[in-house]
Amino acid sequence: MKKYTYDYLFNFTKTLFSKMGCSSDDSKTIADVLLKAELRNIPSHGMLRLKDYHLFWKEGMINPKPDVKIVHETPSTAVVDGDLGFGMVPGRKSMEIAIEKAKKIGTGWVATRNSSHFGIAGYYTMMALEHDMIGLCFTNANPTVAPTWSIDRMLGTNPMAFAVPAKNQPPFVADFATTPIARGKISIAEKKGEKLPFGFVQDKDGLPTDDPGTLRTGGAILPLGSDREHGSHKGYCMGAIVDILSGVVSGANFGPFVPPTVAYLPRNPKSVGLGTGHFFGAMRIDAFMPADEFKERMDEWIVNFRAARPAVGQEKVLIPGDVEREYEALLMKEGITLVPKVVEDMKEVAAELGVDFE
Amino acid sequence: MKKYTYDYLFNFTKTLFSKMGCSSDDSKTIADVLLKAELRNIPSHGMLRLKDYHLFWKEGMINPKPDVKIVHETPSTAVVDGDLGFGMVPGRKSMEIAIEKAKKIGTGWVATRNSSHFGIAGYYTMMALEHDMIGLCFTNANPTVAPTWSIDRMLGTNPMAFAVPAKNQPPFVADFATTPIARGKISIAEKKGEKLPFGFVQDKDGLPTDDPGTLRTGGAILPLGSDREHGSHKGYCMGAIVDILSGVVSGANFGPFVPPTVAYLPRNPKSVGLGTGHFFGAMRIDAFMPADEFKERMDEWIVNFRAARPAVGQEKVLIPGDVEREYEALLMKEGITLVPKVVEDMKEVAAELGVDFE
Repeated sequence: MKKYTYDYLFNFTKTLFSKMGCSSDDSKTIADVLLKAELRNIPSHGMLRLKDYHLFWKEGMINPKPDVKIVHETPSTAVVDGDLGFGMVPGRKSMEIAIEKAKKIGTGWVATRNSSHFGIAGYYTMMALEHDMIGLCFTNANPTVAPTWSIDRMLGTNPMAFAVPAKNQPPFVADFATTPIARGKISIAEKKGEKLPFGFVQDKDGLPTDDPGTLRTGGAILPLGSDREHGSHKGYCMGAIVDILSGVVSGANFGPFVPPTVAYLPRNPKSVGLGTGHFFGAMRIDAFMPADEFKERMDEWIVNFRAARPAVGQEKVLIPGDVEREYEALLMKEGITLVPKVVEDMKEVAAELGVDFE
Repeated sequence: MKKYTYDYLFNFTKTLFSKMGCSSDDSKTIADVLLKAELRNIPSHGMLRLKDYHLFWKEGMINPKPDVKIVHETPSTAVVDGDLGFGMVPGRKSMEIAIEKAKKIGTGWVATRNSSHFGIAGYYTMMALEHDMIGLCFTNANPTVAPTWSIDRMLGTNPMAFAVPAKNQPPFVADFATTPIARGKISIAEKKGEKLPFGFVQDKDGLPTDDPGTLRTGGAILPLGSDREHGSHKGYCMGAIVDILSGVVSGANFGPFVPPTVAYLPRNPKSVGLGTGHFFGAMRIDAFMPADEFKERMDEWIVNFRAARPAVGQEKVLIPGDVEREYEALLMKEGITLVPKVVEDMKEVAAELGVDFE
């Protein structure tokens, strides 16, 4: 299958967003976030999204020239209004504000409203690393998840991401949905005509099912833990906290009111805020101890966990971020493979915007 | 079965800790935290612990007169040394410091080392509510949990707790282990001679088991998600983040080096820091928007989630904190029931310390 170089896809993506009216800087930011997802082998948040982003833009749901600004602040906090831009633009700006605040007083915390889908949450947390800071990022998302004991889709797959710098070891980078599975993987199973394992989704009555099409007929994704006995109420708590920090605190929509980014979810006629919401945090490690001492401690944490004995039949224990980092090095060198359907969609978008794509 | 009034148990507990040499204020704090657990129907963190606490004190592992102090700080952060006190004393002090910092600059973040078991994490988060703040609290704990694909017990059940104030609705209070089940429930099944459902623990080879005695023979508790397919690597990430914030950031022990609080776990001969670690956060809601506006938004969040339609066979959807709050009102009025084994242990401790207990 054809392989694309990072540079080719980066320039293509950048040009595409410029054609939609985004500034050169903003187009670069958007391309950077989307290509980071491709490199880290999270294709669900990469080129796959171009068609949807273009569609939102055509429908006027996105402002390509947003005036992203702080609407409320204290020395350690800010609320940022994303002016309905592509989410990467308010996302990057918000994390920069959190980092600036942390430089001054130790930590910075930014809640962002009036934003939209911003790609991988991990991107923003990793911005903190070069400043010797711990980065945090949460976002709410499409309502597809039912709280424990409910049939209503009240929450998104609401990811949490954390990045922690180390010294000689690579950084710890965790970026995970608060559900057993990402929505994209359910769509893939459906397209392939495969059943899901039990514990991923429930049907319209809240009963167990293995049907990946259930989201189209009133079913829902389950919270992490899958059922009450195995702790799904804890996954529900995590998704709820992400939603409260991203949506309630910022003044964005929350819970079932978050604007959907997939066609089969109806848009809630009611709005309780502005757009989608995110939450960002940056903590200077030397706000707690000398930076070098912290990094040595983090090295020791990583070395110890990496040395944990594997279970029977397993090769090794992973440190969060290991797999993605290895892919990043490999794909930067060997190129990025795209599935035919995505290439087809990209060609369609490119043709509409008058951009070359081979 | 006999019921004890809150006041009787509070005064008994306070007297017990005074007899161990704690100051009157510290004894009151410890009793307050332990009784809050009893009232909220979390007996695993209440009177059940008195025997262990007394044992640690007898063995000289606890300093009853700790000099809890800040060892490093910035305007928004502090590292607190708990001087090896009973964990509730550095715990309460640390959260007070976080709240004071938040009053000044919006948020406050405190990492605490050289502490010990501190009771329910939710207690500290709820301290933030009366100040119109969001409270966060994490702690590391006994190494009993294996990372995904490992057989080594590298993490504790590492709880996360969050409290968020509302206006007319009661607050949102979530306090949950990052595992499918708490360690205490495994012990109860073992004592009753019952099997566990699969997905709670693994055996010494990392293979599935339903044997609650497996922790004594090299087995481990699984992270939330239970297996890789259902997202246990996400539960592992959560437990890891709690450990890094509580242990690495504070200068406490982390991972497999956290001092055990149960007899069947060997004490790790290596130490990488001081005692057990915690992490506390306080965020003023008016650091993001006018407090009243925030509380109205939070009311709307709660009302919407409470109205979510229940699944077939279920009565209603719960808001985190609902059940515990209902118990608190009920048990404060009707009294607290203790299981016979706990009463027996309490009598033993009371006799040793020369305190009356009926």
